[in-house]
Amino acid sequence: MIEVVTFGEAMIRLSPPGALRLEQAQSLDIWPAGAELNVAVGLARLGAEVSWVSRLPLNELGRKVDASARANGVDTSGVVWAEDGRMGLFFVEVGNLPRPSWTLYDRADSAFACLDPGEFDWRELLSGAAAFHTSGITPALSEACARTVRAALEAARETGSRTIYDLNFRRLLTTPDDARDCVERLAPLIDILIGSSAELAAVFGLDDNPREIARRLRDELDIDLVVASSRVDASDGTQIRQTISVGEDVHELASPAFRTVDPLGGGDAFCAGFIFGLMTSGVRRGLELGNAMAALKQSIVGDFAVVDREEVERLLRGSGVQTLR
Amino acid sequence: MIEVVTFGEAMIRLSPPGALRLEQAQSLDIWPAGAELNVAVGLARLGAEVSWVSRLPLNELGRKVDASARANGVDTSGVVWAEDGRMGLFFVEVGNLPRPSWTLYDRADSAFACLDPGEFDWRELLSGAAAFHTSGITPALSEACARTVRAALEAARETGSRTIYDLNFRRLLTTPDDARDCVERLAPLIDILIGSSAELAAVFGLDDNPREIARRLRDELDIDLVVASSRVDASDGTQIRQTISVGEDVHELASPAFRTVDPLGGGDAFCAGFIFGLMTSGVRRGLELGNAMAALKQSIVGDFAVVDREEVERLLRGSGVQTLR
Amino acid sequence: MIEVVTFGEAMIRLSPPGALRLEQAQSLDIWPAGAELNVAVGLARLGAEVSWVSRLPLNELGRKVDASARANGVDTSGVVWAEDGRMGLFFVEVGNLPRPSWTLYDRADSAFACLDPGEFDWRELLSGAAAFHTSGITPALSEACARTVRAALEAARETGSRTIYDLNFRRLLTTPDDARDCVERLAPLIDILIGSSAELAAVFGLDDNPREIARRLRDELDIDLVVASSRVDASDGTQIRQTISVGEDVHELASPAFRTVDPLGGGDAFCAGFIFGLMTSGVRRGLELGNAMAALKQSIVGDFAVVDREEVERLLRGSGVQTLR
Amino acid sequence: MIEVVTFGEAMIRLSPPGALRLEQAQSLDIWPAGAELNVAVGLARLGAEVSWVSRLPLNELGRKVDASARANGVDTSGVVWAEDGRMGLFFVEVGNLPRPSWTLYDRADSAFACLDPGEFDWRELLSGAAAFHTSGITPALSEACARTVRAALEAARETGSRTIYDLNFRRLLTTPDDARDCVERLAPLIDILIGSSAELAAVFGLDDNPREIARRLRDELDIDLVVASSRVDASDGTQIRQTISVGEDVHELASPAFRTVDPLGGGDAFCAGFIFGLMTSGVRRGLELGNAMAALKQSIVGDFAVVDREEVERLLRGSGVQTLR
Amino acid sequence: MIEVVTFGEAMIRLSPPGALRLEQAQSLDIWPAGAELNVAVGLARLGAEVSWVSRLPLNELGRKVDASARANGVDTSGVVWAEDGRMGLFFVEVGNLPRPSWTLYDRADSAFACLDPGEFDWRELLSGAAAFHTSGITPALSEACARTVRAALEAARETGSRTIYDLNFRRLLTTPDDARDCVERLAPLIDILIGSSAELAAVFGLDDNPREIARRLRDELDIDLVVASSRVDASDGTQIRQTISVGEDVHELASPAFRTVDPLGGGDAFCAGFIFGLMTSGVRRGLELGNAMAALKQSIVGDFAVVDREEVERLLRGSGVQTLR
Amino acid sequence: MIEVVTFGEAMIRLSPPGALRLEQAQSLDIWPAGAELNVAVGLARLGAEVSWVSRLPLNELGRKVDASARANGVDTSGVVWAEDGRMGLFFVEVGNLPRPSWTLYDRADSAFACLDPGEFDWRELLSGAAAFHTSGITPALSEACARTVRAALEAARETGSRTIYDLNFRRLLTTPDDARDCVERLAPLIDILIGSSAELAAVFGLDDNPREIARRLRDELDIDLVVASSRVDASDGTQIRQTISVGEDVHELASPAFRTVDPLGGGDAFCAGFIFGLMTSGVRRGLELGNAMAALKQSIVGDFAVVDREEVERLLRGSGVQTLR
Repeated sequence: MIEVVTFGEAMIRLSPPGALRLEQAQSLDIWPAGAELNVAVGLARLGAEVSWVSRLPLNELGRKVDASARANGVDTSGVVWAEDGRMGLFFVEVGNLPRPSWTLYDRADSAFACLDPGEFDWRELLSGAAAFHTSGITPALSEACARTVRAALEAARETGSRTIYDLNFRRLLTTPDDARDCVERLAPLIDILIGSSAELAAVFGLDDNPREIARRLRDELDIDLVVASSRVDASDGTQIRQTISVGEDVHELASPAFRTVDPLGGGDAFCAGFIFGLMTSGVRRGLELGNAMAALKQSIVGDFAVVDREEVERLLRGSGVQTLR
Repeated sequence: MIEVVTFGEAMIRLSPPGALRLEQAQSLDIWPAGAELNVAVGLARLGAEVSWVSRLPLNELGRKVDASARANGVDTSGVVWAEDGRMGLFFVEVGNLPRPSWTLYDRADSAFACLDPGEFDWRELLSGAAAFHTSGITPALSEACARTVRAALEAARETGSRTIYDLNFRRLLTTPDDARDCVERLAPLIDILIGSSAELAAVFGLDDNPREIARRLRDELDIDLVVASSRVDASDGTQIRQTISVGEDVHELASPAFRTVDPLGGGDAFCAGFIFGLMTSGVRRGLELGNAMAALKQSIVGDFAVVDREEVERLLRGSGVQTLR
Repeated sequence: MIEVVTFGEAMIRLSPPGALRLEQAQSLDIWPAGAELNVAVGLARLGAEVSWVSRLPLNELGRKVDASARANGVDTSGVVWAEDGRMGLFFVEVGNLPRPSWTLYDRADSAFACLDPGEFDWRELLSGAAAFHTSGITPALSEACARTVRAALEAARETGSRTIYDLNFRRLLTTPDDARDCVERLAPLIDILIGSSAELAAVFGLDDNPREIARRLRDELDIDLVVASSRVDASDGTQIRQTISVGEDVHELASPAFRTVDPLGGGDAFCAGFIFGLMTSGVRRGLELGNAMAALKQSIVGDFAVVDREEVERLLRGSGVQTLR
Repeated sequence: MIEVVTFGEAMIRLSPPGALRLEQAQSLDIWPAGAELNVAVGLARLGAEVSWVSRLPLNELGRKVDASARANGVDTSGVVWAEDGRMGLFFVEVGNLPRPSWTLYDRADSAFACLDPGEFDWRELLSGAAAFHTSGITPALSEACARTVRAALEAARETGSRTIYDLNFRRLLTTPDDARDCVERLAPLIDILIGSSAELAAVFGLDDNPREIARRLRDELDIDLVVASSRVDASDGTQIRQTISVGEDVHELASPAFRTVDPLGGGDAFCAGFIFGLMTSGVRRGLELGNAMAALKQSIVGDFAVVDREEVERLLRGSGVQTLR
Repeated sequence: MIEVVTFGEAMIRLSPPGALRLEQAQSLDIWPAGAELNVAVGLARLGAEVSWVSRLPLNELGRKVDASARANGVDTSGVVWAEDGRMGLFFVEVGNLPRPSWTLYDRADSAFACLDPGEFDWRELLSGAAAFHTSGITPALSEACARTVRAALEAARETGSRTIYDLNFRRLLTTPDDARDCVERLAPLIDILIGSSAELAAVFGLDDNPREIARRLRDELDIDLVVASSRVDASDGTQIRQTISVGEDVHELASPAFRTVDPLGGGDAFCAGFIFGLMTSGVRRGLELGNAMAALKQSIVGDFAVVDREEVERLLRGSGVQTLR
Repeated sequence: MIEVVTFGEAMIRLSPPGALRLEQAQSLDIWPAGAELNVAVGLARLGAEVSWVSRLPLNELGRKVDASARANGVDTSGVVWAEDGRMGLFFVEVGNLPRPSWTLYDRADSAFACLDPGEFDWRELLSGAAAFHTSGITPALSEACARTVRAALEAARETGSRTIYDLNFRRLLTTPDDARDCVERLAPLIDILIGSSAELAAVFGLDDNPREIARRLRDELDIDLVVASSRVDASDGTQIRQTISVGEDVHELASPAFRTVDPLGGGDAFCAGFIFGLMTSGVRRGLELGNAMAALKQSIVGDFAVVDREEVERLLRGSGVQTLR
C-alpha cells in the first residue's frame, strides 16, 4: 500500500446552514478542515495508508478534529497534543451569484502556529513514506512553522519520500512576495509544485497562462514537475477544471463537468487524487484521478472529499448521473 | 368520479437532509414511497377516487406509511395488516453533478414480499374500478407477488377495469431477461404499457429510439397502447421530458422545462397524470397531464407528487414562474 | 448623513424550510417583511439614517418585527403601538421551475390597516428627512391608510422631502383600475415613480416596453422621474435586471447577473440602493446601486437585503465570485 | 364499532422549537389543533369510528389540517370547504418553571366563525352516531356558531346520540358569565358535562371542590353526569390528575403520574378516553381510559394524543416505564 | 426614565443544540453574551434607557453582537469599532445531572482586551447616567481594561452615577488573590458590590455564610451595600435563589422556584432586576425584581433574560404556571 | 496499556428528534449502537487499547458504523467486511413518564447474524488481550453466532484473557430459558458475569434480590465474580444505580445520582468502566468507575458513553454540577 505523510494545520470551519448569511444564522455548521488534512482524508478514502502530522490543542475542539481524521481512516499518531495554543477557527459563508463566498480567519495563536520544530522527529515520521505533502499555508503560519517545513522536506530527502508542495496562496495570511520567497528557498527540496494558475501567476508575477506558468516555473525553480490548473465556466452553468502538468512530458486534461455546492477543498481533493494516481500509475493517471476528485468534491458540503475509490472510478468510466437503483 | 386501484409495495425512504452525503448525516429525512403508492397519491390529489392495495407490517412504520396515504386522500381499506415481515426501507442520496444519486435497497423479507396471494379478493377490490395499475417492481419482489399480480390482472379483465403496467425496471431487483419474461407473460392481460425509453430498450434489447420502441412493443406484445418517455437536457441547464404514445394514433409531447430538486417519483407522477387524463379525456390529455405532473414532481422533495389539480392546469395554461401575489 | 423616512405595513412571513412545500412542512421559517420596511433596512445597511413609520400590535409578534428593524439599524421611534388589530401574516412557498412561488396573504384587520390617520404627526416625523418613501401597497390596505399616505406626501412637500413611490401592484390586494386611480390622484405629490415594467404595463394598460412606459408615465402623470425595470433570462440559467430611468435624462443599466435563491424583496432592495445613490450622487448612481442591491438580494433568503455598503461596492468593482480568503 | 361525531373549529398552532421563546425563534413548529378535533383524533386512535364536522378555508392551510385529521383516521367528509374566512391560528409558547406557557390567539374571522348554520344537515351528520361531542369554545366563537351548536344538540336528541359537552372555558374568548349562560341554556340538551374543577368553579362561582362542584352542577343543571378533574403536584416533581364523576353513582379516580412535555390537549385526550370507555363499558371505565389518555398526552408534543389502544391498556396494566426491548 | 451605562466585553457563545455534547454536535447554536451586555439587555427589557459601552471588531461577528444588543433595545452608540483584535468566543456545554455544564473560553486577544483606555470619554458616556455597572471580569481581561474600569468609576463619581460592581469571579481568567486585590483597590469607587456567596467566600477567604460575608465585606471594604446570593435545592428537584443585602438595613428574600434550562446569565439577570428595582423603589424592590429576573432567566435558553416587565410583575403577583389562554 | 477485545453486532439506531414520537417524526437521528461496540467505545475513551471484532456489510451503512468506532478510538481491524447480509437497524423512541421508551428491532439477516465462525481467527485476535467481553445478545443472534462466542471464549482461555459476559437479556430476541441454557453452557468459560438484577432474576427464575442473585449464581454456575445492579428512584426525581459484586469479597456501591436523558447504553457504560477499573486496580475500583460511567451515560444522547477519563475522575471526586468556568 502507498504510504503518504502530510503536514499542516487543521481548523474548525463554522458555516451558516443552507443559504443563510452569517449575520442571519442562529447556528453554525461545524466542519473540520485544513489543506493538508483534507489531502490526507482524500488519500485515505482512495485507499492509501496516510498519516497526518500536526499539533492540536488538548481540548474538546482538538479532539473533535482528531476524531474526524480517524473516522476517515487517517492515522493521527503523529499529532502532537498541546497544552498551549488554541484551536484555529474560520468562518465561511458560501455565496450565490453575484454574492461571493468569503472567509473570516480566526487562527492566530493556534496550537499549530505555536509549535516548536523540535517536537517533530521527521526521520521517524517519514520512515517508509513514499511521499510527503505540505502546502504554502504551513510555512506562512509562523517562523517556527517555516523552519519545521524545511526540516520535514530535508528529512524527506533522506527517507527518499517524494515531496509535493501545493502553493495554496492565501492573501489573508501572506503576501505574494513572501509566498514567492518561500517557494524559491524551498524549491531545491521540492519534487512537485502544484497550484492554481491564477495563484501561481499572482505570486510569481506571470501572465495567467497555465502552460507558460508551469513551463517557466519548472525551468526557473528547477522542479521536476509543475502542475497548474484553472476553472472554466461552461455555457450551461456548469464548470470544468483544466489541469496541465509540465515535467518530462506535458499532459493536459479536463475534469468532468461539475456544479459547485461548496467551493472549498477542491484543490486539496485534486492533490489527494493526483498523489494517489501518481504513486500507483504515473503523472497522467494522477491528473485523471485529481480532476475527478476535485470535480466530485465541488458537489459535497464541507472541506473533505467524502468519496470512495469506486465512485471515482465510476465517474472516470463516465457512467453518468442517472440514479443508481 | 374516476375510480382507480393500484397495487404494490410501499417502503420508507431515508435520505440525508440538504446536500449531505449519507456518511456525513446525523439524521435522515423520512419519506413514504413506492411506485404504486406514488401513483395512487398523484391520482387522489388530481381528484380521482383511488384505492391502494398493499400489505403492511402491523407496527409504527407500517402505520406511518398508512397515515401518509390517508393524509393524501388515498383509500387504504384494501391494505392487509401483517404480523410477519418487516417494513421495506431504502436509503437514497440525492446527487449533484458529477455525483449521481444512488439507492441502497433494504427491502428483503418485507411484509409485502411475504404476502400470500389468497389474502387479496381481487374481484371485490376491483369492483367498480375503471382502471388498475401496477408496475414491474411488484412481480419482481417474490414468486407470490408475481402470482398475485397475475390474479389481479385476470380479475381486472372480469371487472372490466383497464390495466396499466409501468415497466419500472430496477437493476437491483431483477435482470433484463426476467423483466422481459415477466412482461411477455402478462402482456395478454395488459392494456397499456408505460416505460422510460432507456429501460424499455435495456429490457427488450432494442435501440433507445422511443418511437421505434413503442411501435415494436405494441406490435410484438399485442398491447393496445405503449408509452415511452425520455429526458432531454436543455442548453440552459433545465430538462424536458419527451413522451410518445403509440396506439391507434401516435402522440408525441414535450413536458414543461424543469430543474430537478429530487429525481425520484417522476415516472410515477407521469402515470398518475396519464391515467387521470386518459380516463377523463383520452390519450393526448393523458400525455399532457402526465408530462405536467412529472415536471412538477421534479421540483418537489420526496416521492409523492404533492400538487393539486389547479396547479397542474395553471402550468398547462403556461402562466409562468412569477411569484403569485 | 442622508435621512430617509419610509411608511408602510410590516408583516411576518412564514415559509417552509428548504425546498419543502407548505403542505409538507412541520415548521415554518419566520421572516419579518414589508415593502417599506425592506427599503428602510436596505438604506440603513448602506449607511443612511432611516426611520420606518408604521403601526404594530402590542404583542410578541409586533415586538419581533420591531426588534428585527432595530437590529438592522432602522429607527423605529415612529412606530405606533396598537392595542387593536393583529399582526399581518403571509405564507410564502418559494418555487422551483416549473413550480411558481406563491403567496397566501393573511393580513386583513392588521394593526396597520386599522390605523387612524391622526395617529401620525407627519410634519414632525418628516422633519429633516431628505426623502420619503412609500409604495402602492400602503394606500390599498384601507381607506384610512390611503388618507394617511396623502397626508404624508403633503407633509413631505412642506418639509422639502423628496417623495418616492413604488407602484408595488398586488393583484391579491387591489385591481389595476384602483391602483391606477390611486397613482393618478397622488401623482402631483410624487417626485419619483418606480415600478416593474410588467406591473406598470398592467396597471396603466400599456405595452410592456420599459422605455415607452417610463416616457409616457412621466409625461402623462407629470412626474419628475419614472424608473422601470424588468428581468431578463440569460442563456446560462442566470438572470439580469434591466432598469431604465426617464427624467431630464434617460439612463439605462443592466444589473450584475444573479441566480435567485429567494424571489421576494428584490424591488425593495432596488429602491433602497436607488434612493441612496440618488441622494448621494444622482440618478445614474442610483440605478447602479439599485441594480446591485437587487441582484444581491436575489441571492439572500428572506425579504431583507442583508448586505453592507462594502459588498455592494465590491460587486460594482466587478471583483468576481472567487472565494475571498 | 362505536360511532362518534365531534363539532368544532380547528386551528393551526405555531410554537417555537425546543425551549426557545417566541421572540428568539427563527422558525415555528406547526401543529394542527382544536378541542373537538383533538377529541376526534383521540377516539379514532382508540379504535372508534369518528367523524369531525367543521368548516375549513379552501387553501393550503385548510388542507393541511384536513390531511392531519385523515392521517389520524378521522372521517372529514362532514367538513364544509369555505371560500370565505381564514384559517384560525394561535401561537403557543410552552413554559418552564417559573415561566408559564401562554397562548396568543389569532382566530378572528376564521372560516369556522363565519359559518352559516344552514350549511350543516345535522340529522344526516348524526345519523347512526352513538355520541356527539362539542365544547364551550364552539358557541363562544360567533352567534352563528352558538346557534349551530344548539341545532346539533337538538338533532342529537332526535338521532338518539348521547351528548357530551366539555366546558373548555377560555378567558381570551369569553367571560365567566357568558360561559355560564351558554351552559345553562344548553343544559337540557346536554347529557354529560365535563370540565376542570378550576374552570367550573370560575364559571359557576363555586369553591374549587371537585366533588361539590360536580354534585351541585348535576343537581342545578339537571344533567345526567358531571365530570370534574384537577391536577395535583406530587412531591417528586411529577403530577397526577384526579377525576371525579357524579351521576347515579360517584366515581373518583387518580391518573398515572406524568411529567408535562406539552400542556395542551390533556383535557381533550381525557374526553376521548372517557367517551370511548363510557360507550364500551360504562362510566368507571371512561374515567380510567380518560385519565390514562390525559396522562399520556402530557408526555407528547402537539395537541393530538398520538397513542394507540394497546399503549393505553399497557399503561393501565401498570407495566412501568422500562424500555421495551 | 432611568438611565444606566454598563461596560464590558461581549462574546459569542457557541453551544451544541439540545442535549448533545460538543463532541457529538455537527452544528453549534450562536448566542451573544457577556456579563455587562446581559445586564444591559435585562435593563432595557424592563424599560430602562441603557447604553452598553464596549469595543467590537469591525467584522460580521462584531456586527452580529451589535445587532443583538440593538434588537433588545440597548443603545450601542458607545461601542468602539476596532480594526485590531478578534471577537471573543466561548464554547458552552449545558450539562445534565451528574454531568456538569462547562465552558471553554477562546477570548484571548479580543478587540475588547486590546482596548486603549483613551478610546473612551467616560465623562461624556456617563453624562446623565443614574448608574454605572461593570463586573470583575472586565478588569481581569487586560491591564488596559483594568485601567479603563478605574477611569470609568472615577468618572462616575464626577457624574454622580451610582456604581455597581458584580464580582463575577472566573477561575479560568484570574486567581482569587488577584480578584481580591482588584476589588480592594476599586472599593472606594464602588457603591454596591454584588456576588454569589460561594464566589465571595472563595475570593475573600471567608466561610460560605451569606449574611456574614455581606456584613464583613461591607465593613472591611467600606462599601454602602453588599448583596450576596446562593442557590438552594428544593426536595422536588426545583431550586430557589436566596439573596441577602446588607446596607443600612438588612433584607433577605427568596426567589420563586425554578428549573434550570440554561444555567448561564442568571446572576446578570439578577443585576438587571436589582438595578432597576433599586433605582425606581429601593433595595428591597431591587432584590425582589432581581430574584424574579434570575429565576425567569434559568428557564430561558441563551445568556439574555428575554422577558418583559409585565412577565416579571405577573410572576411576583404569583399568578402561577397555568397556561395563559 | 490495557488491551481489551469485545465481540458483537453493531446496529444503526434511528430515533425521532427531541420529544417527538416516531409517528410524528419527519426525520430520524442516527446513532451507531451495539452492546459490545458501546463497551469498546467506553473503554477506548477511558484510555484502554481496545479492539472491536464484528462483521459489517460492505456498504455506506457499514462504513458509517466503522467510522464512528474509529472516531472514538476503537481499533476496527478485526472487523470482517461482508458482501452478504444487511446492516441491522433498530428504531427507538425515548419515552417520558408515563410513556415508556420502546424499541423496534429490524436486525434479522444482518451481516453479523450471517457470519461464518471460520471467518474469525480468535487466537490471533485475542493475542495480547488482557480481557475479552461479549454479551448474551451475541449468541442469541444465530446458531453460528453462538458457536463463534464459544470459540472466542475457548481461545481466551488459551491466550489467558479474562472473560466478561454481560447477560443483556432481550425479550425480543430470545426466551428466559434459552438465555439460561446459553449462560449455563458457557459458564465454565466465563470469569465474570454481569447483569441487571431484574434480568438475572427473570432468566434464572430467582427473586429480585441482587445480593442473593449474585451469591447463588456465583455458586451454582461456579463463576469467579458475579455483578448485579439495579436502579433506585430517589424522592427528588433523580435515580441511583446500586451495584453489588460477589466474588472472593462482596462489594456494594451506589452510583452518583442521575437524570435520564437517554436510557440506552447505561449497562454497557458500566461494563466499560468496570473492566477498566478491574484491570487497573481491582473489583472495587471497577464498580466505582462502572457506576460513574453508567450515571454519566444516562445524561448523554445516543448509545455511546461520550466521556473522557478526567470527567469520570472529577465526578468521583464529587466536584458537583456547578458550571466549570
